Amino acid sequence: MEDNHINMQSHSCDPDRPAHPGIFPTREAGKSDHQPGGSSVDFPVSVVLPAGGTGERTGLQTPKQFCSFLGRPLISYTIQAFERVSWIQSIVVVVAKENMDLMTDIVKRFQHKKVRAVPGGSTRHRSICNGVRALGDGEEERPKVVIIHDAVRPFVDEDLLYKIAMAAKEQGAAGAIRPLVSTVIATTSEGYLDHSLERAKYRASEMPQGFTYDVICQAYQKCSESDFEFGTECLHLALQYCGTTAKLIQGPPTLWKVTYKRDLAAAESIIKETLSRSACVITGGSEQAVTLADALQKAVGALDMELDVIPDLMGENARYLLKEWNFIQVSVNRSCLSEVEAVLTDLEAANRALLHPLVVIWVHLSGSDELSVSGREVEPAAIMDLASAAKLRNILLYGIQLHQTKDTERWEKSVLRVAEITSALIRERSPALVGQLLQA
Amino acid sequence: MEDNHINMQSHSCDPDRPAHPGIFPTREAGKSDHQPGGSSVDFPVSVVLPAGGTGERTGLQTPKQFCSFLGRPLISYTIQAFERVSWIQSIVVVVAKENMDLMTDIVKRFQHKKVRAVPGGSTRHRSICNGVRALGDGEEERPKVVIIHDAVRPFVDEDLLYKIAMAAKEQGAAGAIRPLVSTVIATTSEGYLDHSLERAKYRASEMPQGFTYDVICQAYQKCSESDFEFGTECLHLALQYCGTTAKLIQGPPTLWKVTYKRDLAAAESIIKETLSRSACVITGGSEQAVTLADALQKAVGALDMELDVIPDLMGENARYLLKEWNFIQVSVNRSCLSEVEAVLTDLEAANRALLHPLVVIWVHLSGSDELSVSGREVEPAAIMDLASAAKLRNILLYGIQLHQTKDTERWEKSVLRVAEITSALIRERSPALVGQLLQA
Repeated sequence: MEDNHINMQSHSCDPDRPAHPGIFPTREAGKSDHQPGGSSVDFPVSVVLPAGGTGERTGLQTPKQFCSFLGRPLISYTIQAFERVSWIQSIVVVVAKENMDLMTDIVKRFQHKKVRAVPGGSTRHRSICNGVRALGDGEEERPKVVIIHDAVRPFVDEDLLYKIAMAAKEQGAAGAIRPLVSTVIATTSEGYLDHSLERAKYRASEMPQGFTYDVICQAYQKCSESDFEFGTECLHLALQYCGTTAKLIQGPPTLWKVTYKRDLAAAESIIKETLSRSACVITGGSEQAVTLADALQKAVGALDMELDVIPDLMGENARYLLKEWNFIQVSVNRSCLSEVEAVLTDLEAANRALLHPLVVIWVHLSGSDELSVSGREVEPAAIMDLASAAKLRNILLYGIQLHQTKDTERWEKSVLRVAEITSALIRERSPALVGQLLQA
Repeated sequence: MEDNHINMQSHSCDPDRPAHPGIFPTREAGKSDHQPGGSSVDFPVSVVLPAGGTGERTGLQTPKQFCSFLGRPLISYTIQAFERVSWIQSIVVVVAKENMDLMTDIVKRFQHKKVRAVPGGSTRHRSICNGVRALGDGEEERPKVVIIHDAVRPFVDEDLLYKIAMAAKEQGAAGAIRPLVSTVIATTSEGYLDHSLERAKYRASEMPQGFTYDVICQAYQKCSESDFEFGTECLHLALQYCGTTAKLIQGPPTLWKVTYKRDLAAAESIIKETLSRSACVITGGSEQAVTLADALQKAVGALDMELDVIPDLMGENARYLLKEWNFIQVSVNRSCLSEVEAVLTDLEAANRALLHPLVVIWVHLSGSDELSVSGREVEPAAIMDLASAAKLRNILLYGIQLHQTKDTERWEKSVLRVAEITSALIRERSPALVGQLLQA
């Protein structure tokens, strides 16, 4: 059954996987200047992120927005998705009173900018209303458009935000929609089918939604206590109390709301996949290392991962320190770890592991002579100690050892194994396996 | 950031995770005698599984129902969920003509019983109709109740099937429902909000659904070409053409339909989690091994995995060969692999790896004396060769090595590392890492 195991992580039947949204910017937060459609947003836009949910539907003790993915809470991913958009001026996160300290810690620890936390109300609409009011309090310019989003929809992309903001300014209100997955039915009070709706006429109302500041303020001023208590749909309030008919915009499937326990696994998988598309191989320039790196590039490419081969991280190549999440250091005939230590130092200097755990793989190519003399020339304890220290700084270090050989078939088998192990380590990002020296 | 990495696989904030349905029976297929509510189903029930989808919404080339999870297509998991229910007499899978051979291969390879494949029609209703007609053709008794389910909802449990079957017999029709996750809105033809529905009055119609054979046959006899062409809801046909009002039954969240790419990751995660709840430690009976096993039991328990400690797989303990997916063989001061080879032989004899890949971990506890003499006394090539052979038979073999020491702190650290590595290997089930001898 061997063939069925290959590339299981990304599902073996998945050669043409669609791209996930670019949730991991290569530039610094706030420096994006992407302007979809060639035009820019020339009016102030702010964001309200209700994050007061209690996590009932996942069956977890921790609310979903504070669940940790690769060491970082979900809410931080969502904040990051907005923070990197240059034309968004500020983000107000609305959290339950008891989570205010936690939220403040998160903002500090992950160095979020543009963010304020305000306490929520007893219902969704009361919380959003608090958030909208807080936008008027700040020192910054009053926004023209307010985007409302959910803390538990981390994968929103700039293109959709742009469309929502523009349509909201034009129309007063705009919202993202998705086709219905299931037929919707009306039930009798006794639990029987009353009638089913014609699926094509209806849509699921999703987030983000956008409103002009005036429309959303007016809607919350005029709406009833019953709306505050039982309502869930902002577009409905805009229609009923301001006569504003929202423009509906179809969003991508990644908009979905992390709701059930299975969604946590789905979100983690999207994050891991986005971090695992490419890696950078550092050869040191030696001929043997370059030969190995080129062979690896081909073999890992067949496993759907792109490798860039570079001699070092200096000069022009220092840019990889700002854009890559995975590094492979090839060392030839040198059993000391100095080269990989240098990579770790560079990564720390670049503060690269702040938002995501980095993977560093040390591939040690030993001469066939060494093999017969000592069997295993690297002291396992050395790499384990180095890895334990790196893990504290959010860098996952692993080792792979292979032996030079003139036997072509054996060599190719070894290279293939290095490729498979590399791909698995990068995709799985397992903290338990750091410091291991694996054999190829 | 070390603390954030612990137990990431099952989400660090998740101490009270709800159980997933028991999709992996411990008995042989077809031998279940579970009778929810204490009563049995005393009428013939058959199942129609439409599996003709083309996978458009996942963006994959392979339709979802044929996507491979741990080496087995999704449709096989769904078939298994029905096959293990004793009171279900037969299952008709409806597949596109071009996939008939593939389906036949799947049934043969995974030794499914009770299953026939029939070719589908051009729409969902035509396919289901073909399946229902095929039920009348067989040699077996004509069913009293027909359950219709989706091939891409693999996690249906017996309890819900029972409720659906009983309600269908009583009422003529029954269907599973779930609360709506998003507000449903009606749109104008120009893409604006028309109105939003009051969420509490509506439900999502899911699968399974059940009908008496007479109702579903009559519905398909009477319904129009337009229904066949554009309709999606069987409950609607029963209501419109037979005047049968379906009983609606709320199902668990695991009922969901694998629709988007993210759902593939969610499904894989549920399967892996279900396989990773427990493991069985075989000690050979030596005092040192038992001491280690007991310490491991405690440490792995803290990582949310249950360990049973047994001396061997003989007599009463042979039952573990029929119910466990993960085995840990502890060997003391013996650098040969004979004990783990014996476990592999037993597992193969039990045909245990037919439906799921098994994990076997060889934990080698070496005396502190050996350490100073040879450094590493097990030849890595030996376990790699054994693992390569085992992988072909769907068994994933890994090794972990630790050294006996009188230094308590060092010993406890080693045991903790064995626990973390064990837990990670079992949860990740990575084929790329088989044959590695990891250091604890």
